[in-house]
Amino acid sequence: MVLFFIGLGLADEKDITVKGLEAVKRCSRIYLEAYTSILLVQKEKLEKFYGKEVIVADREMVESQVDAILHDADKEDVGFLVVGDPFGATTHTDLQLRAKALHIPVRVIHNASIMNAVGTCGLQLYRYGEAVSIVYFTDSWRPDSFYPRILANRQRGLHTLCLLDIKVREPSLESLARGRKVYEPARYMTVNTAIEQLLEIEQDQKQGAYGPGTLCVGVARIGSDTQQIVAGTMAELAEIDFGPPLHSLIIAGETHVIEEEMLAQYRCQPSDRS
Amino acid sequence: MVLFFIGLGLADEKDITVKGLEAVKRCSRIYLEAYTSILLVQKEKLEKFYGKEVIVADREMVESQVDAILHDADKEDVGFLVVGDPFGATTHTDLQLRAKALHIPVRVIHNASIMNAVGTCGLQLYRYGEAVSIVYFTDSWRPDSFYPRILANRQRGLHTLCLLDIKVREPSLESLARGRKVYEPARYMTVNTAIEQLLEIEQDQKQGAYGPGTLCVGVARIGSDTQQIVAGTMAELAEIDFGPPLHSLIIAGETHVIEEEMLAQYRCQPSDRS
Repeated sequence: MVLFFIGLGLADEKDITVKGLEAVKRCSRIYLEAYTSILLVQKEKLEKFYGKEVIVADREMVESQVDAILHDADKEDVGFLVVGDPFGATTHTDLQLRAKALHIPVRVIHNASIMNAVGTCGLQLYRYGEAVSIVYFTDSWRPDSFYPRILANRQRGLHTLCLLDIKVREPSLESLARGRKVYEPARYMTVNTAIEQLLEIEQDQKQGAYGPGTLCVGVARIGSDTQQIVAGTMAELAEIDFGPPLHSLIIAGETHVIEEEMLAQYRCQPSDRS
Repeated sequence: MVLFFIGLGLADEKDITVKGLEAVKRCSRIYLEAYTSILLVQKEKLEKFYGKEVIVADREMVESQVDAILHDADKEDVGFLVVGDPFGATTHTDLQLRAKALHIPVRVIHNASIMNAVGTCGLQLYRYGEAVSIVYFTDSWRPDSFYPRILANRQRGLHTLCLLDIKVREPSLESLARGRKVYEPARYMTVNTAIEQLLEIEQDQKQGAYGPGTLCVGVARIGSDTQQIVAGTMAELAEIDFGPPLHSLIIAGETHVIEEEMLAQYRCQPSDRS
């Protein structure tokens, strides 16, 4: 009858909305999209909370088994759970378009995502420019498309939210070359790695988009009880231990008085350093 | 014990998160911030759903009666409800800083806001530049600080989210001049008024930031059952009736194939016109 896209919010099973939970209870099948972000709790905790089974949908499944996901969705309700907000990532557009083509009604239940929850760090949301993604460098590939974007934001005095890479259940390139998929262990980029890569690219590009003295805010596990927010220079934050995932980094643009007051409460102290 | 900032999400009483609702149930006093945004349901519906009284806090109250709001918050839980996400607006920063100065623990419960839910229209969130506010013109004041920002976004091919003015329980300028406050009726800017003002400013500035033929998306009541999303040129959208508040407008930058596929389902038809 309906394909629900249900945002789960940021941290645990109780971040779902009351409306979202009601939709979950109506659904015959529930998929959990588990590759563009992660919730900070295990699937079993969700299943216990919902009182029903949750099918984990990895990238391969969502990209190649759309028909299975949509099977009978014209006769019964199907739920597609997404960490954060359903349209934080572009990944689910295809599923939505396919459902519409099959005349299956689609309903979206929104929730917080890092794109708006980052406002909690004290830098004001309407003063952010374009967001960027920082992906893991490999021996042969150092993607730096973020650089001109950060530069343009900084030239306009705007903050930049850097979304840090997540590698979940992706086959290793080596195994693909051998024709037999072997999955690499999950990896979540830390603030420290992000800063290291950023500074490497600044050294190549030398246009002064930022440097070791640039004010940044590192955030970890936003919305959870163990949330961590630390403001400091890139050099300072490079030494801070932010603990388990997920991490994000904000490169500050020009700051206003009220933003500075907010950041002051999060300024790093020597004791924060690892 | 704790001052909770609780995001209510976008549309109705069931958009609160399970975690947020649990916090509401713990609180001795509940304030509803009612001037930077509005929920699409009445206070009484919230009270019935929560099983307790909700105190509406207008701008004057939040700005002048912080002590009353924080009274005894070191001994009992107090909740401050905000439509959308608590830090979508800058308005609550002061309350948070005051609580911290009094050593009252602050806890934030996030939710969807227009800043991330707008992703549902099909233009991808990471391709938005700086957001702008469009405020009502008066006879003597036509604020146009949005113009260079939209221009800069468009020059970089980025989309611009335009947040439209809300006037709730604000004393009229005339009454302030007479020394006795009279409150004006609430007003919520429509997509139509926003486009009219935007085009007026383009005529003054003539830098080609946008024009009647620029692709835009008008959205109304996002997250509710009556949600409306229409894509079209500024000239086309100026003629569409988007119905009751709240409205927002997105000025598209360069669009990618997948964005165009998403927008195609929302393209305005002649029958949409009022």
